Amino acid sequence: MKKPPLIRIGLLGLGTVGQGVWKHLSRERQPFERRLGARLQLVCAAVQSKKRKRSVRISTTKLTEDPFAVVDDPNIDIICELIGGSGIARELTLRALQSGKSVVTANKALNSEHGAVLFNAARRNGGRYFFEASVGGGIPIIKTLCEGLVANRFPLIYGILNGTSNYILTRMEREGLPFEAILKDARKLGYVEADESLDLDGVDAAHKASILAYLAHGKWVPLRHMILAGIRNLAPIDFSYARDLGYKIKLIARIECALEKRALSIGVYPALVPLSEVIANVDGVYNAVSLTGDVVGSTVLIGRGAGQDATASAVIADIADAVRQRLGHPNGTLSLGASATPKPGEHNQLAKPESIQGRYYIRLQVQDRTGVLAQVAQVFARNKLSIAAMTQFENAHKGTATLALTTHTGNERAIAHTLRDLKRLKTVTAPPVLLRIL
Amino acid sequence: MKKPPLIRIGLLGLGTVGQGVWKHLSRERQPFERRLGARLQLVCAAVQSKKRKRSVRISTTKLTEDPFAVVDDPNIDIICELIGGSGIARELTLRALQSGKSVVTANKALNSEHGAVLFNAARRNGGRYFFEASVGGGIPIIKTLCEGLVANRFPLIYGILNGTSNYILTRMEREGLPFEAILKDARKLGYVEADESLDLDGVDAAHKASILAYLAHGKWVPLRHMILAGIRNLAPIDFSYARDLGYKIKLIARIECALEKRALSIGVYPALVPLSEVIANVDGVYNAVSLTGDVVGSTVLIGRGAGQDATASAVIADIADAVRQRLGHPNGTLSLGASATPKPGEHNQLAKPESIQGRYYIRLQVQDRTGVLAQVAQVFARNKLSIAAMTQFENAHKGTATLALTTHTGNERAIAHTLRDLKRLKTVTAPPVLLRIL
Repeated sequence: MKKPPLIRIGLLGLGTVGQGVWKHLSRERQPFERRLGARLQLVCAAVQSKKRKRSVRISTTKLTEDPFAVVDDPNIDIICELIGGSGIARELTLRALQSGKSVVTANKALNSEHGAVLFNAARRNGGRYFFEASVGGGIPIIKTLCEGLVANRFPLIYGILNGTSNYILTRMEREGLPFEAILKDARKLGYVEADESLDLDGVDAAHKASILAYLAHGKWVPLRHMILAGIRNLAPIDFSYARDLGYKIKLIARIECALEKRALSIGVYPALVPLSEVIANVDGVYNAVSLTGDVVGSTVLIGRGAGQDATASAVIADIADAVRQRLGHPNGTLSLGASATPKPGEHNQLAKPESIQGRYYIRLQVQDRTGVLAQVAQVFARNKLSIAAMTQFENAHKGTATLALTTHTGNERAIAHTLRDLKRLKTVTAPPVLLRIL
Repeated sequence: MKKPPLIRIGLLGLGTVGQGVWKHLSRERQPFERRLGARLQLVCAAVQSKKRKRSVRISTTKLTEDPFAVVDDPNIDIICELIGGSGIARELTLRALQSGKSVVTANKALNSEHGAVLFNAARRNGGRYFFEASVGGGIPIIKTLCEGLVANRFPLIYGILNGTSNYILTRMEREGLPFEAILKDARKLGYVEADESLDLDGVDAAHKASILAYLAHGKWVPLRHMILAGIRNLAPIDFSYARDLGYKIKLIARIECALEKRALSIGVYPALVPLSEVIANVDGVYNAVSLTGDVVGSTVLIGRGAGQDATASAVIADIADAVRQRLGHPNGTLSLGASATPKPGEHNQLAKPESIQGRYYIRLQVQDRTGVLAQVAQVFARNKLSIAAMTQFENAHKGTATLALTTHTGNERAIAHTLRDLKRLKTVTAPPVLLRIL
């Protein structure tokens, strides 16, 4: 019997995810190799410091502090880029793609910020670029979007794409504690990225949303063209108000495309999600994505959005696809070949703010004196935004009151102008808090 | 520029699903072809009668009443078998595989009953066999299991795999009506298969479970080796009792494998599912599958389990994989090549009934007289099954009472013996109703 071919793998980065990949690829190697019809060799890993202590036992002869040595090694077939960020990772990825290697990555920031360049390079090298782990952790959302639901166009994709913020929101809701208190805990648990803005201001979810939007609609949307808001200004009162109305608060990434008008919009923001939606009940560090396909209808995927093992599961699935591709086996990879432009929507335009409709929840801190309510109501009326419900709470702080209100259907232009005008009112004593209602 | 290659497709069967495939493949053809890098031609469809009225417009020159003419046509590359059942479909499928054609099928009964033969034939023809639509309708569960989560072994897979029974259970729960009343409605809506046993006795879900179990654990388990029970004997009282305890009743397919012991068990039965589980809240015709992977943790997929469009979505995804495979493109197909044995568990054994543990709910109709409760309790005690809770209801029928009880953890052997002994009691006046508690 012919010996199966040998495929050699090099890792860039041996942090949490890298160690997970190494661990799970070493364990249970034989059945995995049998399924793939190939032998796998973990050749080496590039690290920042060879001396650092790691939970996985790896001979130091397999470690190098020079990532370029890994990328330039002619004996390596597949590069796993697990450094993250869009600095050196970009250079290494492009170099690997240009030399005909297969690249597997978990790097969402890199794809989001340099997608056009990277995907073009990937097309030129025959589509040997795999990034399942960059969105939704262990959930096979990219494969589902591009292969499993290939018959569909997607008027709506939405979900929870950042586990850390979902963890914080879940605990705020359950414990009624303020944001800062839960954030402290999340930091201690190591859940929060070094650059906290990624988790707390929706940036990480926005990176992931831009990748999904490109795959579904063929357009790279930079973050500055998204509606982007984080979770820092949420207060316990928002959660109790939401609960009374039958909602949960989730940081939602939402990609909407009016298929006929070819108008695309992406938003990442805290939103009130009706309890009847499956996604409202996805708590803790779990992620979830709801895809509405024009053929299949609504499909929901739920799973661990981050963490060593879940991400390693996605990286290894991509390695499997990369191996089969290298063997010429007809199996599982996202087709990025020249002939495979992603979906019909390359000429999609960004939707105008006035065409993005929705309902809104606004919380205001105002001076507690006569005429304030009338002032606030006038601002809404002037901007043609109709108030659906309003509650006024007494505040512990003397002299101020809290207004919580919801609107009938309006649009992003109207709500933006309304917020601008509210901020200008001297009687509004803190920046308004805005949540969108799904 | 080189003209893309032409791939020719023939359909066997043009019923609901066949017409859906034809419709969606005709619509939006160009962008789909561009993505695939191939031109597609719907050559013909084999039908029972050319004269039958259909919702899709197809020239009669493209119809034939001889399915073998389609399978034997050397100009056809891909056969979509949408006839169903395991009669002529088996012969046609084997013939197509043997002649080197790619076969796409939605046929769960065929795969379940003749899987060993079919998959061997598929391996010999290079794995050109695609059956995503045979499980979970539009949900890409097969791709997820075999590709997206390829890094995992699966100690537990469970879910709702039959939409019709879920529709009936959902309405029984919401409306408090008896089984027969809702069944009548479901028949009128065309939801129930001609062979009603498929939907009502768990047979359809069992077919699907056996496919998932084979893919996950490498063993074909015939239905006679499963725990198999349907929904016919459920009554409104079961739903109200379940609700009081914090459960919903779902027809659950459950594939459990003790990975260390390599002991596999498959059950399809109505079960009490805790409301906190996502799957408890999947209602109506929707399907859902929860996969617990040893690397990724718990992942849940939810979507439409049947219907023209959802099933067509899955068939078309398989056609896309088949096209790419034929083009030698390295993309998306379940690898059934000789080298790709499914998962390490080929030597899995069936778990013994006494090793399959669980908690149980039993409803009994008994004579309403002194000593009956003691008799019943003795049966449980004799079989070492410990009662956790019991309620006795008065019945409208004079002289009888209803007992509803739950047990502590027991096993399938103990519950089987308990039911046997209860049936033998003269004071038990109707067959006991058993639900498993998840």
